[in-house]
Amino acid sequence: MPYELHYWPSIQGRGEFVRLALEDADIAYVDVARQPGTKGLPAMLRLLDGKDVVQPPFAPPFLRAGKLLIGQTANILLFLGSRHGLAPRTEAGRLWTHQLQLTIADAVNEVHDTHHPIASGLYYEDQRQEARRRAADFIASRAPKYLGYFEQVLARNPRGDKYLVGARPTYADLSLFQLVAGLRYAFPRAMARLEQHQRLVIALHERVAARPRIAAYLASERRIPFNEEGIFRHYPELDRPAAGGR
Amino acid sequence: MPYELHYWPSIQGRGEFVRLALEDADIAYVDVARQPGTKGLPAMLRLLDGKDVVQPPFAPPFLRAGKLLIGQTANILLFLGSRHGLAPRTEAGRLWTHQLQLTIADAVNEVHDTHHPIASGLYYEDQRQEARRRAADFIASRAPKYLGYFEQVLARNPRGDKYLVGARPTYADLSLFQLVAGLRYAFPRAMARLEQHQRLVIALHERVAARPRIAAYLASERRIPFNEEGIFRHYPELDRPAAGGR
Repeated sequence: MPYELHYWPSIQGRGEFVRLALEDADIAYVDVARQPGTKGLPAMLRLLDGKDVVQPPFAPPFLRAGKLLIGQTANILLFLGSRHGLAPRTEAGRLWTHQLQLTIADAVNEVHDTHHPIASGLYYEDQRQEARRRAADFIASRAPKYLGYFEQVLARNPRGDKYLVGARPTYADLSLFQLVAGLRYAFPRAMARLEQHQRLVIALHERVAARPRIAAYLASERRIPFNEEGIFRHYPELDRPAAGGR
Repeated sequence: MPYELHYWPSIQGRGEFVRLALEDADIAYVDVARQPGTKGLPAMLRLLDGKDVVQPPFAPPFLRAGKLLIGQTANILLFLGSRHGLAPRTEAGRLWTHQLQLTIADAVNEVHDTHHPIASGLYYEDQRQEARRRAADFIASRAPKYLGYFEQVLARNPRGDKYLVGARPTYADLSLFQLVAGLRYAFPRAMARLEQHQRLVIALHERVAARPRIAAYLASERRIPFNEEGIFRHYPELDRPAAGGR
């Protein structure tokens, strides 16, 4: 039985962090909600809303792996990492990888809130003024803090600055690739300036993008294009480079 | 060597989820930043900002356990859970417990943003208007969704509705206690109404509060009182019960 990935069918969103891991590790999976008919989105909604689901997920993405039904993006990656060689085997290495993943998740939450600072249930247009303020702060303070942090982690890695953890790629590297890709889509003007200070992070992004299975995935129809329904949205009015050097 | 917990010394904040686990499992620890002199807050800041820290945490809390330096609240609990019997031993049980913890972490992030919807670096007073809108949505939509979710998890637990996972308490139960305690502090009027629909969650809160080590901890000076520097803040103007039944 291949794994079943359950996620909204028209966006990259948080599901994309799982897709990248599945693709890179060459794991067979079905992207359930993108299948046609009742085996598609309705099948996901049955697991999400079904009253007979003993361990219900709070929200997509979730992964069905045999009898396991695993929710929360970072938790899914924790599982895939240990099962499929996408994380170190040692306890110390597993915890460090997961710690980095949870920090990426925090950054992703903040990116979401640049366009939805008031309510995820309201349209962007209904919170545009607040979004301008929040996005300006994100670009001026938060994005440099997060990217600078990962730059530092790479620079201090005793096994070299190619990957976040040790000398081999982990799911955290795949996720950092996605964070950079998403920030470039959402905030191209701001990122052009920010990137100048994050040489190692950008090199990691290129390194991941060039991995054969990732490159094939990105060129395929399985990679949903970024769009303004997802987490990383391009609204030109929010993409204003911070004043000053960075 | 006792564990070292590193967290801001004047608030419960995210560190409290770790403190509750350490206290309940009767684990020896030093709450570093609350110690006097240079072994206190400066010691925490050296680990946070020191250029020689090979695996730097992004933010407090972090835990030093021998050679390990573990950051991210949920990650620390993952570690403590497996080392100290605060989570099931099976892979399925560990993942489910962690999934619930990450959902609690999401709820906590949203609570933080009720008073800081624009920028964590600005004062509440500089984002009060936006906070009113965000808090109103949190009370009307998000708090009932999260609490209703955990109510459902308890109701569906095949081993009984006393705990979230199986028949014994886990770190996720301790954290759900803290979420409820914090919401009661921050939003007493709104919670009085919301609680009517969450009988099992409230019973779990009482059950955890009555655990002997937790009760002793809550009565001690080690438990920092809630205050308006932490995550759960009581601003009366944000505590407006939603219109309608819930």
